[in-house]
Amino acid sequence: MKIIIDAMGGDYGVQPIIQGLVQALKQRCFTPIVVGDEHQIKPLIPASISHQIQIHHTADFIKMEEPASSAIKRTESSIYLGMEMLKNDQADALISAGHSGASMSLATLRIGRIKGVSRPAICTLMPTSQDKYTLLLDAGANTDCKPEYLVDFALMGYEYAKSVMGIQNPKIGLLSNGEEDTKGNELTKESFALLKSLPFFAGNAEGKNLFDGNFDVIVCDGFIGNVVLKTSEGVAQAIGKILKTEIKKSYLSMLGAFLMKGVFASLKKKTDHSEYGGAPLLGVQKPVIISHGSSNARAIECAIYQAIYTIESRVCEKIEYAFTQK
Amino acid sequence: MKIIIDAMGGDYGVQPIIQGLVQALKQRCFTPIVVGDEHQIKPLIPASISHQIQIHHTADFIKMEEPASSAIKRTESSIYLGMEMLKNDQADALISAGHSGASMSLATLRIGRIKGVSRPAICTLMPTSQDKYTLLLDAGANTDCKPEYLVDFALMGYEYAKSVMGIQNPKIGLLSNGEEDTKGNELTKESFALLKSLPFFAGNAEGKNLFDGNFDVIVCDGFIGNVVLKTSEGVAQAIGKILKTEIKKSYLSMLGAFLMKGVFASLKKKTDHSEYGGAPLLGVQKPVIISHGSSNARAIECAIYQAIYTIESRVCEKIEYAFTQK
Repeated sequence: MKIIIDAMGGDYGVQPIIQGLVQALKQRCFTPIVVGDEHQIKPLIPASISHQIQIHHTADFIKMEEPASSAIKRTESSIYLGMEMLKNDQADALISAGHSGASMSLATLRIGRIKGVSRPAICTLMPTSQDKYTLLLDAGANTDCKPEYLVDFALMGYEYAKSVMGIQNPKIGLLSNGEEDTKGNELTKESFALLKSLPFFAGNAEGKNLFDGNFDVIVCDGFIGNVVLKTSEGVAQAIGKILKTEIKKSYLSMLGAFLMKGVFASLKKKTDHSEYGGAPLLGVQKPVIISHGSSNARAIECAIYQAIYTIESRVCEKIEYAFTQK
Repeated sequence: MKIIIDAMGGDYGVQPIIQGLVQALKQRCFTPIVVGDEHQIKPLIPASISHQIQIHHTADFIKMEEPASSAIKRTESSIYLGMEMLKNDQADALISAGHSGASMSLATLRIGRIKGVSRPAICTLMPTSQDKYTLLLDAGANTDCKPEYLVDFALMGYEYAKSVMGIQNPKIGLLSNGEEDTKGNELTKESFALLKSLPFFAGNAEGKNLFDGNFDVIVCDGFIGNVVLKTSEGVAQAIGKILKTEIKKSYLSMLGAFLMKGVFASLKKKTDHSEYGGAPLLGVQKPVIISHGSSNARAIECAIYQAIYTIESRVCEKIEYAFTQK
């Protein structure tokens, strides 16, 4: 199993990318192909495992402030070269923590959409209060959507939930402003009318359903998906800060917090986005995992596991088959 | 100061409404006019204060499952009668925890919009990790918006932040999928182009900015506003549940949690929506406060304080003046 890792363009440079890769190599068996500046990459790889890692040198990469549209012309950039290798079957999946717009546009233009898929979508796992996750898509690829895109997101989410998450009969919801069938804006009302003919569609979901485990997959447009994702991170951070401030107000609560260290560690692990690795871009013909620009080593490590599950589950082929039956 | 309280249509009946009113009367001086079924209301009022409360009897009310459009024909319903009294200057403000769609449509049709306001908007206070709140509007009145509505929301939010929240130079943001000026969907990009001519407009805000205190007011369409609100409630609930589950796993952490009781109480108070009372419907000519159907007594009590601030600050007049200068 060969996995291309774009080492360039992350917020913290090459270091966390390579460190995450080294950690993943200790746990799982795969062949990494690292694309990027070998002068920066090589010194970070321990001598004992350097023979396991292929490096494909290029110093060019798409910077965060550049427009995504420039990616198609920059044929020497790390993400372009990586996508070409994936396209030419030199590897089974690609991971990038660089410019996500560039990754998405190159995945669509160079790898290509699965036949019948109107738009690829980014999917993200949301932690819930139950012992399971809810898959949210689209988490940011398409800011303006048509009803038929949301139907495609539902079909792709269903296949992902079955194949990668191992859920027998996934329940798919449509993110709306109320659970009643009549609730929604123009887009979701039209989408609802199309979605209700799908046997696995379980109706409208509310924002709180992202975290209560009552739906396995929730679909929405990429603008709302992004806002919801950042809202949930913001709430968790605010609660953390308020707790810290309150704890410092008395010695007794400081002692209490010390005794609860394990509890807070479990909570952090459960709500830490690093643990979910990258977000698969569903709807393109090969596995592409988009990681956050600010990914730390653990996030890259988990993104690699995510890539492995995506390859092993053959979810791209399953989505392709599902769309021939549409 | 006279405040009309619609006693009908809440999820838990008349009881929490009257209890909240009784609590508020102990703290502040005002004259309540309760509209609703006097056979249910009277027994809940302590004899010692019964002379302070006027009851305007009607047994009819709009049920949650009825369409909002039926409100205009139901001239004997509690919300219709209450709105008529407000319209006829028999009181200074109205509070309802009944059918919110009915309250909004009657407020718009019977009380009327302030001249120049394209659509009234619901505004809600969000707790932040700083010692202040962020005002979110529209929190649910308008599911599909045009760019000019969002400009009106910004103007109204600015006046509310200055007059009711007491902020000297409120910073207004536009909820988007990134902080850069170029980010957004079609609606927010067009809104941004209009908003940037306003001197108090501080650019795009992200979901996380709702809780970090970096903006005083954040505007969005009512569909996203509602989703964001329920998402944030969902995250807080999920964190609470995860904490409870983890705490029960060891005696030490149970002791820790006991010592941290005060901390958790402060956090609960800070993040409990009951504490913010109802949500003012800005843009209509008189103060109308929409309370959640599931309001408990504390939420009704706080909604009454909210009504008092809204009357005292003369925010309706200030919005009216601002729109003559638009």
